[in-house]
Amino acid sequence: MTRNDIAGAISGAVRHTGQRMPVIGRLLRRKGKARGAAPGTVVHTGLRRIDRVRLRWFEYDNSVVHEHTGDTYDRLTRTEPALDVTWLDVTGLHDTDMLSRIGQDAGIHPLVREDIGSVGQRAKLEEYGDDAVYIVLRMLTLEPGHDVIAEEQVSLYLTPRFVISFQEAEGDVFDPVRQRIRDGKGQLRGRGADYLAYALIDAIVDSYFGVLESLGEHIDALEQEVVTAPDRETVRRVYAVKRELLVMRRAVWPLRDVLNAMVRDPSRCISAETRVFLRDAYDHTVQVMDTVETLRDIVSGLMDIYLSSVSNRMNEVMKVLTIIATMFIPLTFLVGVYGMNFERMPELGWWWAYPSLWVIMLAIAGGMLAFFRRKGWL
Amino acid sequence: MTRNDIAGAISGAVRHTGQRMPVIGRLLRRKGKARGAAPGTVVHTGLRRIDRVRLRWFEYDNSVVHEHTGDTYDRLTRTEPALDVTWLDVTGLHDTDMLSRIGQDAGIHPLVREDIGSVGQRAKLEEYGDDAVYIVLRMLTLEPGHDVIAEEQVSLYLTPRFVISFQEAEGDVFDPVRQRIRDGKGQLRGRGADYLAYALIDAIVDSYFGVLESLGEHIDALEQEVVTAPDRETVRRVYAVKRELLVMRRAVWPLRDVLNAMVRDPSRCISAETRVFLRDAYDHTVQVMDTVETLRDIVSGLMDIYLSSVSNRMNEVMKVLTIIATMFIPLTFLVGVYGMNFERMPELGWWWAYPSLWVIMLAIAGGMLAFFRRKGWL
Amino acid sequence: MTRNDIAGAISGAVRHTGQRMPVIGRLLRRKGKARGAAPGTVVHTGLRRIDRVRLRWFEYDNSVVHEHTGDTYDRLTRTEPALDVTWLDVTGLHDTDMLSRIGQDAGIHPLVREDIGSVGQRAKLEEYGDDAVYIVLRMLTLEPGHDVIAEEQVSLYLTPRFVISFQEAEGDVFDPVRQRIRDGKGQLRGRGADYLAYALIDAIVDSYFGVLESLGEHIDALEQEVVTAPDRETVRRVYAVKRELLVMRRAVWPLRDVLNAMVRDPSRCISAETRVFLRDAYDHTVQVMDTVETLRDIVSGLMDIYLSSVSNRMNEVMKVLTIIATMFIPLTFLVGVYGMNFERMPELGWWWAYPSLWVIMLAIAGGMLAFFRRKGWL
Amino acid sequence: MTRNDIAGAISGAVRHTGQRMPVIGRLLRRKGKARGAAPGTVVHTGLRRIDRVRLRWFEYDNSVVHEHTGDTYDRLTRTEPALDVTWLDVTGLHDTDMLSRIGQDAGIHPLVREDIGSVGQRAKLEEYGDDAVYIVLRMLTLEPGHDVIAEEQVSLYLTPRFVISFQEAEGDVFDPVRQRIRDGKGQLRGRGADYLAYALIDAIVDSYFGVLESLGEHIDALEQEVVTAPDRETVRRVYAVKRELLVMRRAVWPLRDVLNAMVRDPSRCISAETRVFLRDAYDHTVQVMDTVETLRDIVSGLMDIYLSSVSNRMNEVMKVLTIIATMFIPLTFLVGVYGMNFERMPELGWWWAYPSLWVIMLAIAGGMLAFFRRKGWL
Amino acid sequence: MTRNDIAGAISGAVRHTGQRMPVIGRLLRRKGKARGAAPGTVVHTGLRRIDRVRLRWFEYDNSVVHEHTGDTYDRLTRTEPALDVTWLDVTGLHDTDMLSRIGQDAGIHPLVREDIGSVGQRAKLEEYGDDAVYIVLRMLTLEPGHDVIAEEQVSLYLTPRFVISFQEAEGDVFDPVRQRIRDGKGQLRGRGADYLAYALIDAIVDSYFGVLESLGEHIDALEQEVVTAPDRETVRRVYAVKRELLVMRRAVWPLRDVLNAMVRDPSRCISAETRVFLRDAYDHTVQVMDTVETLRDIVSGLMDIYLSSVSNRMNEVMKVLTIIATMFIPLTFLVGVYGMNFERMPELGWWWAYPSLWVIMLAIAGGMLAFFRRKGWL
Repeated sequence: MTRNDIAGAISGAVRHTGQRMPVIGRLLRRKGKARGAAPGTVVHTGLRRIDRVRLRWFEYDNSVVHEHTGDTYDRLTRTEPALDVTWLDVTGLHDTDMLSRIGQDAGIHPLVREDIGSVGQRAKLEEYGDDAVYIVLRMLTLEPGHDVIAEEQVSLYLTPRFVISFQEAEGDVFDPVRQRIRDGKGQLRGRGADYLAYALIDAIVDSYFGVLESLGEHIDALEQEVVTAPDRETVRRVYAVKRELLVMRRAVWPLRDVLNAMVRDPSRCISAETRVFLRDAYDHTVQVMDTVETLRDIVSGLMDIYLSSVSNRMNEVMKVLTIIATMFIPLTFLVGVYGMNFERMPELGWWWAYPSLWVIMLAIAGGMLAFFRRKGWL
Repeated sequence: MTRNDIAGAISGAVRHTGQRMPVIGRLLRRKGKARGAAPGTVVHTGLRRIDRVRLRWFEYDNSVVHEHTGDTYDRLTRTEPALDVTWLDVTGLHDTDMLSRIGQDAGIHPLVREDIGSVGQRAKLEEYGDDAVYIVLRMLTLEPGHDVIAEEQVSLYLTPRFVISFQEAEGDVFDPVRQRIRDGKGQLRGRGADYLAYALIDAIVDSYFGVLESLGEHIDALEQEVVTAPDRETVRRVYAVKRELLVMRRAVWPLRDVLNAMVRDPSRCISAETRVFLRDAYDHTVQVMDTVETLRDIVSGLMDIYLSSVSNRMNEVMKVLTIIATMFIPLTFLVGVYGMNFERMPELGWWWAYPSLWVIMLAIAGGMLAFFRRKGWL
Repeated sequence: MTRNDIAGAISGAVRHTGQRMPVIGRLLRRKGKARGAAPGTVVHTGLRRIDRVRLRWFEYDNSVVHEHTGDTYDRLTRTEPALDVTWLDVTGLHDTDMLSRIGQDAGIHPLVREDIGSVGQRAKLEEYGDDAVYIVLRMLTLEPGHDVIAEEQVSLYLTPRFVISFQEAEGDVFDPVRQRIRDGKGQLRGRGADYLAYALIDAIVDSYFGVLESLGEHIDALEQEVVTAPDRETVRRVYAVKRELLVMRRAVWPLRDVLNAMVRDPSRCISAETRVFLRDAYDHTVQVMDTVETLRDIVSGLMDIYLSSVSNRMNEVMKVLTIIATMFIPLTFLVGVYGMNFERMPELGWWWAYPSLWVIMLAIAGGMLAFFRRKGWL
Repeated sequence: MTRNDIAGAISGAVRHTGQRMPVIGRLLRRKGKARGAAPGTVVHTGLRRIDRVRLRWFEYDNSVVHEHTGDTYDRLTRTEPALDVTWLDVTGLHDTDMLSRIGQDAGIHPLVREDIGSVGQRAKLEEYGDDAVYIVLRMLTLEPGHDVIAEEQVSLYLTPRFVISFQEAEGDVFDPVRQRIRDGKGQLRGRGADYLAYALIDAIVDSYFGVLESLGEHIDALEQEVVTAPDRETVRRVYAVKRELLVMRRAVWPLRDVLNAMVRDPSRCISAETRVFLRDAYDHTVQVMDTVETLRDIVSGLMDIYLSSVSNRMNEVMKVLTIIATMFIPLTFLVGVYGMNFERMPELGWWWAYPSLWVIMLAIAGGMLAFFRRKGWL
Repeated sequence: MTRNDIAGAISGAVRHTGQRMPVIGRLLRRKGKARGAAPGTVVHTGLRRIDRVRLRWFEYDNSVVHEHTGDTYDRLTRTEPALDVTWLDVTGLHDTDMLSRIGQDAGIHPLVREDIGSVGQRAKLEEYGDDAVYIVLRMLTLEPGHDVIAEEQVSLYLTPRFVISFQEAEGDVFDPVRQRIRDGKGQLRGRGADYLAYALIDAIVDSYFGVLESLGEHIDALEQEVVTAPDRETVRRVYAVKRELLVMRRAVWPLRDVLNAMVRDPSRCISAETRVFLRDAYDHTVQVMDTVETLRDIVSGLMDIYLSSVSNRMNEVMKVLTIIATMFIPLTFLVGVYGMNFERMPELGWWWAYPSLWVIMLAIAGGMLAFFRRKGWL
């Protein structure tokens, strides 16, 4: 178990508690192999999030659909792929032996096998030969009420008739796709493996909108807070949202390139009809990216408001102090004068001296107040 | 009704009240289908802004023009298109059944049908086959006296002889175009469907200038306010304008790419003569973009002035406090000295002591004032 | 008279008074036609700066030069162009009828005719067919002692043997070119219309250097002021210069693209020999651009110095207050103690009490001063 | 010994002491030749970090591996290269004579020979002829507990069957590669010299992750410190991390270009199979770059939190002062009033005057406290 | 003598005095011709830095070298170029007649002749015909102890067998090149005119490293100052370094493009072998650029540290004031109470009242101190 495993496990453990999570654990879950090890070694760098690996085996064409579920690899491979599209849906990446065997049976390049298990990668597209494409995606989830985006790596291995998907944990993002395969409604069953891959990518891009909505609501609340009742926690909350936007940006930005490459570059794996749909997913990604950037601008603006609000309040504090102090300090001096014990102070004997002093002092105080009012401090 | 519908409805409702509107409602009115649903499902994600869908059917060539108006789709399709150009002008997007039927009759790609109803998209251009172009535009309006830009999505579906336009609400932006068709003045009637599409795009780009003018007047007023009488509301107003500029930028930036693509890429739908006019619209868009960026720079500068103005005023407050306090504190000490009750204080008995003390104190005060004047604080 | 005309007139009127001018009037003098009007309508959006339109008609080749001046169009067109190069130099754009007639006679595209009269455009180059180029330039002038750059739009319409130039107001920038035509010195007379266009562009680019010099002197003065005697006006002056640099940048940046296009793109209108000269003008434009960017960086730095200078001065104010207050407050307390009227205060009766108290108080004051000196506050 | 040697020696000497190191020593260890000297002169600009140069000579194919170690060049060259791949691994660059002889024997271009010894270069790739590639890499190490990244230059000279690597000091980064050659496990022995070069590059890129982890832990600690207990040292620590991220960025950014060139450009030295692996190393480099940029954003955010935290604390100090001062200053004035010695002050004789004054003063104090509570200052 | 000459003369005069130099004089030494003059007029816009123009005439091939020195042009041209490479090395640009004659004899394009004398240009490369290249370079020098970079323009005119170099003033940067020609060591004598041009460019790029070293040492000193003893001068010094980095960036950035063009574009003037060396110079330029950008980032960070240091010190001042004031203000109130002259104040008669009051006051002071300690202010 490498240092990364431990870091990953720790960061994963605190993820759902809403606690502050170390930056490094989230940004740096790197390549799985031990440092300096030979490339192609399969190591799992993430957290074992589920107890058993779960395998789902879909095989379908326009009229027929077979579905098998299991938790060991051997049982599933007995099925012979004969229909148009086969989807092997692997959930849980900690059984590296099983991943190795699946990889070898499917003829996956050693580097891809290494990548599947190392869960901190950027979205990317890699072509291997003419008819295999390996796609890494980042699935993001932000439960309402939580502050921290949970990231999960999803890998797709796509050949002309075959899709293998690798997920870290059980999630409901792919459930609608599974249901559409079972129902046979829509065009999913009538199209090829490339359309299935598109459907999975689209499901993930769709999930980004949910995260954006949660972040947006959070920012709206923060904006309200900054304007009405900022306290010392506010700046930390602004900073935390900023960091989540950085995480989101890191996840989405490379996806744009991936989808652009899928739309533009000719490849045997992806048909022209599917490209039209991928273009649509690309548009959505650009829209997400765009919104992330706008939210970043908005959050920066929040920081400005916060700082100016702090300045304003210090200004107000200063004004109160200044008004009170400058009004009473001269008066205190005056009463001090007539508290002196000089033998020869003629004023002390004048019988109207005391009331006159009050009049004078009230005049001074009134003059001060007028001065402050003219300055606009009252 | 999905979560987006609700958000859209709420955000739409507050739009015209001038209230602060949630960020998220404006940035994130996303694709219409329920999350995970099959692509091509038509859902309307916006607010039902008008009671009934309104359809206008123009058919014209250089000499003849037919115009029909109605609110049901069936009645209009009875007209047979025979003249050069046909324009179906649809206002109101909430009747998804009608949109579906129009889409199917016109042979519109399922993804386009989905896009028409989902009103939070970026400006974009998509070609379908050789002879169909789908264009999404963002219409912006900013009523004078309001702070918030209202956005509306306008879709154009263009084939060599056919234009279908989809608008969310009744607006007067296209009225001059309709009038020019009816009048037959200018070159609109003598040119094809592509020129009609240009005329509609040009009308929208023109409307941006009005928004810019309103924003510019607002910024001028803000500038005046920042320089002469900034208060705590000022920074929020600056921030609000900043946000509107972000909204504007998001709307215009992709339009530039759309128009650039229309000018550069060869397409059967758009003739070379019309390209010259589109180049003109492109220039206007660049000019709008340019102005938005410049206004953003100017607004950033306003923030600087505001902050330095706040600093300056705190400085002034501090100076008043300092002058008063440092002038009277030593004097108060002095009068305190002669208020002491020591039995042996020879000064108390001297007959010129009291007037001398006044002289001394006036000298101290005068010295202080000279010091402050030399410091430049008076 | 559209809304723009009024805005333009107002903004123009205050231009030469050195008053603050509305942002919007300067950034947004847009396309001339009324909103929604058909393209090609000629409207003048600027200010009528001169009373009568002035026309100058130069016709020359290497040996002969004809020059006519007038203020009506008809009189001039009687001259038949027979020599190599013809230059029609139009000053004043408010006679839209005359502009329309000139445009029609010269076969100018309707969009160009519209552009000539609308004076708020970006620099641009548009080719119409093979042998006509339309160029928009921004002439900038900044009179010494003024703070605000005055902009003027100059349009050139260039065909292989013909140059028409349109200016808003009489200026001396083109005078040296006119003189060189009359003198026949240099290579101007021996080259074609494209070289004449180059000479006019070069004259405008040259004028940018003058504006930069004025701005630079202004910035030097500001720098001096920020460092030695910043006051509340300083930040506004910095901000004003920043805005002028934005205006300059907006004017020069697109010119770079125009000149780059003229140097790179093959065109029948511009010969290879003239391209060498245009490359030179391009270099100058890049140099101007570069200097504008550097000045922007310098002005941003000025803002930093200003803010730190304000901070420093508040620091100094605080120090004075703190030194005086903390030195006298304990002493005032002490003298207060011996001003109390308790019957049993043995110190009051001691004969050396009063002088001892003075010694103690001087010691306290001295200790305080030593403390402040050690802190480096004195 | 040039000026650079001295600077390098000094900066190297302090490197491992954790002391602040001069910026210039780290950024500017430039080309080795004396200024103005002829190109191709071999000079060592770094620090002599080890006593003797150490040479390792590996020669291997799929079945056989020869390894020799020595510290003089002559002894090693007696071995005749006969197997598939030969790796000459040079540690220590101060013996310029030996480097010259190695360079001449291997037919290395004079400019490369100059580059090998000058240790402050950017990562770069240079092709010499068809079959020689020279690669400069930056190895980074950050010992835990240290603040300063130590940089080391590694050069690779690659021909179809030959790899020469030059390192400044003995390090353990290449040890796993050496071990894999000795063991014969994995595919290293079965592939060519280009794969060996990839393995060395991969080892260096792997080492970046370790540096990032250390930096990340440091930033996590800093974040904790900024939020809970910032002091005057905090800002310096933030600044120091910022600088290390700049150093890292400078090292990694050009490496991205190097690897991109190796993946894209056809070259006889690098086979198509190895390109797949280099693409993987490229992905890792992009990931490192990405993380560095994100960390930079995070560190910038830390600065904001720090500044707002300082502001908040000044605010708090001001509040305490203001509360105490504004509460007691009016009371002190009041008691001063009744300390006056006027002969005619009727209140002094009233028997309930003293307790009433206490009631009044408590009421004033209570009112002040209520005021502060309403302001939210308590 | 144009306005530029005067500005140039003034700015040059103060250059070596270490005085603040006007921004504009340094950024804007523009094209030499009077505004509006015909292109091709030779005017010198710089300062006459040396008394007489100095000409050096080198002619060499692998075996022979002729060298002549003089200060008039006619004497030199009597030499007939017969050997491989001829280098005319002109120092001093104020003799515009001589420059014109040299230009005409060498067949230099009029625009180049104009450029040679105008000394404020950006680095650029211009090809004239197939076999002439004109290169402008900026030589930078920063004497140790000085704050201001001195710029000098160096022009190279390169044909296949001929190099003419134009310098403003006598400098030692080219001396090593001259010495290498005389010595015949290295490869300079054996290669063509293009290699000589490379050697001159390399000498200039080398000189940038010296400037960077001086700037770096300056920044190191500034960093030390900011951290330990910042005063009001510090921010100006930071700003001054920032400005020098801007000047450096302006000089180096275009040189990168020049060298890139020389490496990439095929040209008869530059052989493939020399391109390899130019690539090396290009790498150095990129390294310089890179370092300049990093230094800019570092200097920006210095500003942050400075501002936070100022904030911290104001905080400290405030704390001292607050501690003293809040501790004594309540005590002063208390002693004021017992200084009142009410007839009925029972406490005044109690014999233990005075010592008890002291105990109470000490307790209050102690409590305050404990409070401050808990706040962390002590």
